Amino acid sequence: MKTPIDFYFDFSSPYSYIANEWIDALAARHGRTVRRQAILLGVTFLAAELKSPVSYPIKREYSLRDFQRSARFERVPYAPPAQFPIPTQNAARVFWWLNDTQGEPAAADWARAGFRAFFTRGVMLNDVVALKALAAEAGLDADAAEQAWSDPLWKDRLKRANEEAIAAGVFGAPFFVLDGEPFWGNDRKPQIEQWLAAGPF
Amino acid sequence: MKTPIDFYFDFSSPYSYIANEWIDALAARHGRTVRRQAILLGVTFLAAELKSPVSYPIKREYSLRDFQRSARFERVPYAPPAQFPIPTQNAARVFWWLNDTQGEPAAADWARAGFRAFFTRGVMLNDVVALKALAAEAGLDADAAEQAWSDPLWKDRLKRANEEAIAAGVFGAPFFVLDGEPFWGNDRKPQIEQWLAAGPF
Repeated sequence: MKTPIDFYFDFSSPYSYIANEWIDALAARHGRTVRRQAILLGVTFLAAELKSPVSYPIKREYSLRDFQRSARFERVPYAPPAQFPIPTQNAARVFWWLNDTQGEPAAADWARAGFRAFFTRGVMLNDVVALKALAAEAGLDADAAEQAWSDPLWKDRLKRANEEAIAAGVFGAPFFVLDGEPFWGNDRKPQIEQWLAAGPF
Repeated sequence: MKTPIDFYFDFSSPYSYIANEWIDALAARHGRTVRRQAILLGVTFLAAELKSPVSYPIKREYSLRDFQRSARFERVPYAPPAQFPIPTQNAARVFWWLNDTQGEPAAADWARAGFRAFFTRGVMLNDVVALKALAAEAGLDADAAEQAWSDPLWKDRLKRANEEAIAAGVFGAPFFVLDGEPFWGNDRKPQIEQWLAAGPF
């Protein structure tokens, strides 16, 4: 029985967006499923005493360039959002609401819709009006989605996801755990591919 | 006329060591040469307000594991040094002394010898006795090497290299500049390969 790949992401992370576009096909080729874990990078950064790469001016300049180049390398459409990074707790709560009430495929569809909206069309996921419109566009009950992101139940669910991620050693995103082995970054794709194809190395 | 690949490294950087093992063959396959630039990561970190990944406890644990896994992935021998990171200014000054008085191949040989000694046999490059013995083992005039690392001329040469690296936007290592395009990290190898094989993307 092959275990699923845990995939931790923040809706505001460009490298998570890119990885979100290749992880399912890669997993499927090797008989694996993906178990997505929406988290807030800010919370894991705080726990690990880290900051976003774009909070350091010199690293920021390189990172903004590398986001775009890495997207082109993976042939993923990418348009730098005007505002970045943004708080993504509402989008993440909708993810957990869908995951726990409708199942992983519905949550994965929402992850895809949210990432693509923010990183290709500049839809501001932190704007409740824009987020509600996106929920409707994604085929969700927009009022129910809004209720979910305001509900203490789903706020707590996201908090728990953050705590579990921190306990699992997650300090950045995308972060993968595959057969207990941690892989941090979109750029660990070649190592993940080799692990899936030929086992531990 | 194809331009050389600038390769910035610190003798104490595991990812630089790994990259040092693949960069020449990759460059040669595409008709390029490598222009090595020994620098001190501590100086570029300071300029960019960054710290080593191993200075953050949670990231450190992952990084130590990833160093070894990334070495295995590239089929490069790797034995975690007992003390890490270490100050590497003496080894870097010997590099520049060789580079400027004997030419790039001699400096590249020293880079290879220094990296392999530290990362496969735990030879402490910050220990002047061990470094002098390594210089002799590498076929250098060990007394001349010792004089070089104590000489203000080569101290200044390394300072200039650090300053030029910072001016070029270098904030970590390994760092590559290829046709003016910056690539940070051993894990940018696939992108560098594609750039070399098919041009800018």
